[in-house]
Amino acid sequence: MNRPVTLTFSPLYQQIQAVLLARVVSGEWAPGTFIPSESALAKEYAVSVGTLRKSLDALASDQVVIRHHGKGTVVATHDTDRSLFQFFHLVRLDGKRSLPSSRVLLRKQRAPTPEEVKILALEIGEKVIHIKRVRDLDGSPTLLEDVVVSARFFSGLEIAPLPLPNTLYQLYEKQFGCSVANAEERLSAVAANEADEIHLEVKKGTPLLEIRRIAKDLQGRPVEWRVSRCETSQYCYFNEL
Amino acid sequence: MNRPVTLTFSPLYQQIQAVLLARVVSGEWAPGTFIPSESALAKEYAVSVGTLRKSLDALASDQVVIRHHGKGTVVATHDTDRSLFQFFHLVRLDGKRSLPSSRVLLRKQRAPTPEEVKILALEIGEKVIHIKRVRDLDGSPTLLEDVVVSARFFSGLEIAPLPLPNTLYQLYEKQFGCSVANAEERLSAVAANEADEIHLEVKKGTPLLEIRRIAKDLQGRPVEWRVSRCETSQYCYFNEL
Repeated sequence: MNRPVTLTFSPLYQQIQAVLLARVVSGEWAPGTFIPSESALAKEYAVSVGTLRKSLDALASDQVVIRHHGKGTVVATHDTDRSLFQFFHLVRLDGKRSLPSSRVLLRKQRAPTPEEVKILALEIGEKVIHIKRVRDLDGSPTLLEDVVVSARFFSGLEIAPLPLPNTLYQLYEKQFGCSVANAEERLSAVAANEADEIHLEVKKGTPLLEIRRIAKDLQGRPVEWRVSRCETSQYCYFNEL
Repeated sequence: MNRPVTLTFSPLYQQIQAVLLARVVSGEWAPGTFIPSESALAKEYAVSVGTLRKSLDALASDQVVIRHHGKGTVVATHDTDRSLFQFFHLVRLDGKRSLPSSRVLLRKQRAPTPEEVKILALEIGEKVIHIKRVRDLDGSPTLLEDVVVSARFFSGLEIAPLPLPNTLYQLYEKQFGCSVANAEERLSAVAANEADEIHLEVKKGTPLLEIRRIAKDLQGRPVEWRVSRCETSQYCYFNEL
């Protein structure tokens, strides 16, 4: 068996990577702006350009920055394409991708459930904002979503002007300074209940794909809990391993 | 919106990466063996060590090679851990991972279905080998799998001594010289049928998670088509985005 050897120290490029990430997280380097040149940063941290480049490569592969060859390095923003590409895995059975449109059914601030307290690591007394929406694909209701975030960090989301953008993560970034960097999804098969029957126009008991997602920010803190129930007769969840 | 600029040429490191990949694919560099040092390879291709390292980084992130800091670079093998880590996404709802055990129900050579011809890009008259198996997790039947490969490339698999290894990809690599490098999975929710009722011990109509996987070799050729039907009351499909 081949296993990577255990490192007892953090390589230099990883240390630089952490320092650069901190400058993005702190907001010193804003989304959509160019960061200093490789040579300037290499000089600032007294490392070789090769090492500095390796740190940027790592940040680019984490999608924190985007490298434009010959032009420089930009802090990533959650533009529509990237959000959909990274987070929206539903494709039509014939392979075509289509953009969903969303209809908000409910938006309110309320006390969290014990499960939400645990998943979102909420403090005692902290409230949540709950958004329920249907997402249509090619004109058919396909996803029924419950989105839950902390009311402390997303204060006012429950009264933000409608329509909410289809990719909520853009709104989180622009209005609340919160960048969703990655997510964990847990998928299972469930039977349609009465709410699904109404909003997804399926018979009760129809098999649905349930996706439970915890979205995290650049520092790994859970920021959103989302449960999506999908009708998969015309769509499937696509994943590349 | 930030988009990477379109490259009209292939960067040097990618060209070197392709050349190195070819040496792995051809078998010149066998799985589990060290490849020449960075400096030797840089000299051989007349590129800087920095460029060569970038090529190796790319191959490492594709899991073609494994870099052991201070020791050298090894061609990856499909050891059990790696196969399970990369390809087995089912985890218990409480987050624990357990190893499946497999029971082969059927193994035979037969003519392909039109769908199999298309998916596996089979030639006219080419036969397939079909393996049907149940995979147990923590003692309970959890996955019912239909595995289909070309009989031309996997000649004899239908009579290989039982038990087949749990991670078939190890067998493909050792006995058939075929390395599965990546896979596409399409997930949907389906209702249990009579075969599921018997082998997964669920009632007909129970929602199951169906995973349709196309596994590809290092050169991107489809080598295996697998349909797994999973009972997800105790397990879920875990995915990190």
